[in-house]
Amino acid sequence: MKKHTVVFEPAGARCEINDGATLLEAAARAGVGLGSICGGSGICGKCRVTVKAGMSSLSGYTDAEREFIKQAEVGLRLACECRIYGDVTVRVPPQDMVSRKAARKVSVNLDPAVRKYSVKIAPPSMQDMGKGDRERVMEALAAQHGLSGLSLDFHVLKGLQKTIRDARGDVTASVWMGREIIRLEPSVSGAAYGLAVDIGTTTVAAYLCDLGSGNVLDTLSATNPQAAHGEDVMSRITFAMTEPGGLSVMQGEIRDCINGIIRETGLTPGDILDMTVVCNTVMHHIFLGIDPSGIGAAPFVHAVSRPLYVKARELGININESAYIHILPAASGFIGADSAGVLVALGPYSRDEKVLIIDVGTNGEILLGDRDGVYSASCATGPAFEGAQIRFGMRAAAGAIERVWIDTETKEPSLEIIGNARAGGICGSGIIDAVAGLFKAGIIDKTGRLRLERLEPPRAEDLSHTERLRLDALGRPEYVLAWKEQTGTGADITVTQADVRAVQLAKAALYAGTRLLMRRMGMERIDRIILAGAFGSYINKESALAIGMLPECAPENISAAGNAAGEGAVLALFNIGKREEAERETAKLKHIEISMDPGFQDEFLAAMDIPHR
Amino acid sequence: MKKHTVVFEPAGARCEINDGATLLEAAARAGVGLGSICGGSGICGKCRVTVKAGMSSLSGYTDAEREFIKQAEVGLRLACECRIYGDVTVRVPPQDMVSRKAARKVSVNLDPAVRKYSVKIAPPSMQDMGKGDRERVMEALAAQHGLSGLSLDFHVLKGLQKTIRDARGDVTASVWMGREIIRLEPSVSGAAYGLAVDIGTTTVAAYLCDLGSGNVLDTLSATNPQAAHGEDVMSRITFAMTEPGGLSVMQGEIRDCINGIIRETGLTPGDILDMTVVCNTVMHHIFLGIDPSGIGAAPFVHAVSRPLYVKARELGININESAYIHILPAASGFIGADSAGVLVALGPYSRDEKVLIIDVGTNGEILLGDRDGVYSASCATGPAFEGAQIRFGMRAAAGAIERVWIDTETKEPSLEIIGNARAGGICGSGIIDAVAGLFKAGIIDKTGRLRLERLEPPRAEDLSHTERLRLDALGRPEYVLAWKEQTGTGADITVTQADVRAVQLAKAALYAGTRLLMRRMGMERIDRIILAGAFGSYINKESALAIGMLPECAPENISAAGNAAGEGAVLALFNIGKREEAERETAKLKHIEISMDPGFQDEFLAAMDIPHR
Repeated sequence: MKKHTVVFEPAGARCEINDGATLLEAAARAGVGLGSICGGSGICGKCRVTVKAGMSSLSGYTDAEREFIKQAEVGLRLACECRIYGDVTVRVPPQDMVSRKAARKVSVNLDPAVRKYSVKIAPPSMQDMGKGDRERVMEALAAQHGLSGLSLDFHVLKGLQKTIRDARGDVTASVWMGREIIRLEPSVSGAAYGLAVDIGTTTVAAYLCDLGSGNVLDTLSATNPQAAHGEDVMSRITFAMTEPGGLSVMQGEIRDCINGIIRETGLTPGDILDMTVVCNTVMHHIFLGIDPSGIGAAPFVHAVSRPLYVKARELGININESAYIHILPAASGFIGADSAGVLVALGPYSRDEKVLIIDVGTNGEILLGDRDGVYSASCATGPAFEGAQIRFGMRAAAGAIERVWIDTETKEPSLEIIGNARAGGICGSGIIDAVAGLFKAGIIDKTGRLRLERLEPPRAEDLSHTERLRLDALGRPEYVLAWKEQTGTGADITVTQADVRAVQLAKAALYAGTRLLMRRMGMERIDRIILAGAFGSYINKESALAIGMLPECAPENISAAGNAAGEGAVLALFNIGKREEAERETAKLKHIEISMDPGFQDEFLAAMDIPHR
Repeated sequence: MKKHTVVFEPAGARCEINDGATLLEAAARAGVGLGSICGGSGICGKCRVTVKAGMSSLSGYTDAEREFIKQAEVGLRLACECRIYGDVTVRVPPQDMVSRKAARKVSVNLDPAVRKYSVKIAPPSMQDMGKGDRERVMEALAAQHGLSGLSLDFHVLKGLQKTIRDARGDVTASVWMGREIIRLEPSVSGAAYGLAVDIGTTTVAAYLCDLGSGNVLDTLSATNPQAAHGEDVMSRITFAMTEPGGLSVMQGEIRDCINGIIRETGLTPGDILDMTVVCNTVMHHIFLGIDPSGIGAAPFVHAVSRPLYVKARELGININESAYIHILPAASGFIGADSAGVLVALGPYSRDEKVLIIDVGTNGEILLGDRDGVYSASCATGPAFEGAQIRFGMRAAAGAIERVWIDTETKEPSLEIIGNARAGGICGSGIIDAVAGLFKAGIIDKTGRLRLERLEPPRAEDLSHTERLRLDALGRPEYVLAWKEQTGTGADITVTQADVRAVQLAKAALYAGTRLLMRRMGMERIDRIILAGAFGSYINKESALAIGMLPECAPENISAAGNAAGEGAVLALFNIGKREEAERETAKLKHIEISMDPGFQDEFLAAMDIPHR
């Protein structure tokens, strides 16, 4: 049989493959991971590649491809659809660097809320006229699967008779929680999908999961469109309070955003049979259409602590119309369902060692404890760690300076930039690196002051020889991280005195909060630190320790957990026991209101120094 | 104190009353039943009267009155709002005679699905931040009323915090089935209302009930707008099957019709907290948006037998948005939720005597049995008993001839007409009377033939002397019931040979069905006959016995029960035990498919004669 060579760029992987094989098969042989949710059926549109050479060696465009590929997208093909009749070179498009939230491979016992049961429904006869088709389905599920006492969503009832007739009684029922039939379809049905959603104040991340296999199939993300009304939760509360209809505008925005993500999966919405949601309490209220203003001022009362189940259709979310959305518990205005997600993902309550979990987002959320009890606190770090309130701050997207080293001799920096782009700004991990580097190089002192003064006579620690330390147009000191020739913006990128102060305030709030929590718990030492959140994955722990952001801990016991909140949502999607665990453990959580502690101010001031007093 | 005289027309009732009393108080003193749901608060608009004399003796129009009374309606006042300062004569507007379905006074233990609980919610503090307002409400209900394990409708959650704050923690929760909070409102709240709805193929009747007192406050009705697509259920099935979107058109029509009735109550929709529905299985499916076509042909499969609970908002019914609608069980395509209503209203299953219940509507529904078991059957009577398929047939509305006597000597008829109007046609009870009268007067023979032939030589039974017996323009025999001078239509109203045949077919179907059911059950005699349905209340039982429509039974043991189906809906509204009873007893019901019985044809032919062979 004829063989052809297929090359995959940019990885450069290659393989020999039989005449007539598909590009998807070639990718598998070459070890190239191509997104494919539908397993090559041409219905998910996820296995797109761009043909660089050898288009004429491929079979013609199919109807399925025309579904997903616009005329304008020259060279694009679905790998599962085109067959190979000659040598070909294709390029696998790089993922957009919109967000770096990513799902870890999840290992959890599979016990999802929705399970599928295939049943045979006997044809009706004049002898059992007293039975409706609904009762026939119920009896079949009881007899063939031992399921009894089920209810049936009203919307399923509408199409029930036609489905049974069309499938000649050979149907599959999707049963929610062993309680309610939420779908009835012909038995040739495919997988049951679920979506775990993390509604962040800035970014919405979603994990598309196969409820049958326990695999996370895809990670999708989008910017939370509410960001147009302000970066932080307080600005959203303000918008809801001051703008007529503001709440419903924001609820519509997040609904549309999630529906956009669902469209992006390429799946038929009706195939997504479950959804879990984590988010902070303000996002939670807005998503549900509940006025969040109570959370904005003392006594900070939120509407509901308990986890919720709401029909997707009630919220206008376009998954299966009979499916439920599970929103994890929001213990208080400060400790949201996102913390509940972190809690079940990392399970401090079942650890012997004392673990500190820090989720750094717009605010710093802390969990501290072990199997004897877990405390939570919220630190007003402000958004400096997210690159906001920093002169050249930006989010961790392409062009962001994410790693910084400063030579202690030459005072020259080395930079690492996301996405092989020219520098456009500094993200959170970069600013922490920069402050740590400036301190180690003696450019800032322990109070955080940029040491611009020239020493007379010049001494070894004199910094006047580096042009990078200078005054800006308004006479304020700054350090040039990247000269304008190196940047994508055409301007120098600098770290200003104010930037250093912002980092100091943020790290002091976090450190003081941790110390205070330890003191309250009578805890002497911390065994392990886990940094949660996308930011935590990219932070340089040596830099974090160097500036005194983290309490004392052996560096080898400091690790990152990625988007643990999102992972908690994924766990809750795959295993209903995790939902109960989230509810139980969130209820047991002891929350400490740090800012109300009389000792806070002293701790905070002491923590301002680098590393700290 | 000054006294004034108030006269109420057309009843002519009068009373003396103190200066400054309201017209509503005067009506009560005079013994005149004025519709008043709100108890004189000016919010229901039901106590309208027309002032015939003495307008200047009344207080001025109030805001409440302006709400309900259009400028054009000269002399109209709300009796509860206007105070009396002189002699007055008012007229109580007669009820429209659209339908004669009427609620009986119901006696049932009060155990409604929705109950109100007044609770005090303590103000939140920084010390219990872990509690959402929802949890605060739950704890208060548990502590103050022993209610635990409640859920809370998602829509209630949205307004929860504002309600609690506005009412300073003094709130009333409406709890459905001891399970779910469907409303939270300030504690100065009023009554809890419920609506029992009987969706007939022709007429929709609704009973507005006070769930707190057990009183039926009002009876409202409207024509089912689906009637535009045909009079009987088969025509509705045909419309759903043949007209694109026909099902959703009809669902919209019944929804709008019920919402119109709800508007007519004058209540705030949110105050109606429960609703029960009875109807035949075709109306049931259309109301729920389920394709009814399965019911139209063998094996006559309906979608669901079990009773249903559906949120009102899912069906677009404008009662409280969190309230449920309970639809009574529909045992089969032929035995609908209306039969379930009749069953619980009349309770044959707990009687010692053998009772036959006949619900005559467009079809004849039969229930027969006692505490040892109840059988049901459906007789294809056709709509003759409703005045349809009768040349001058009409519904039982103003102008309908509802009673007929024919003098056996003179062959002259005496008529009773609904609503003191001129005759416009004949309704069901009238046509039965007419056929019975024609038979007794010898004008028709036992085969139903109009004896038009003249006898040579003339004999005593010769009918040639009455001009009322004649040939119509097409040469078909007919009997003139009302000369055109007496009618409101300007034309003679006659009973035709075809009319007599239609009545014979209908009564034969009913009689044969009953006989067959008795035979199947090995029953020799019937102790009691109850005629249900609006029609049953107006039928003359002597006439029914005379034409052989009813099986042998002592006339004193034949009675009418009014709209028993609607009464069943009212009972189910006031007492949830009745819902369980309806489900249990409907499931036990043994349905006999009469038309499939080999003996049916013989019974049917034998029953065609008057009274019968």
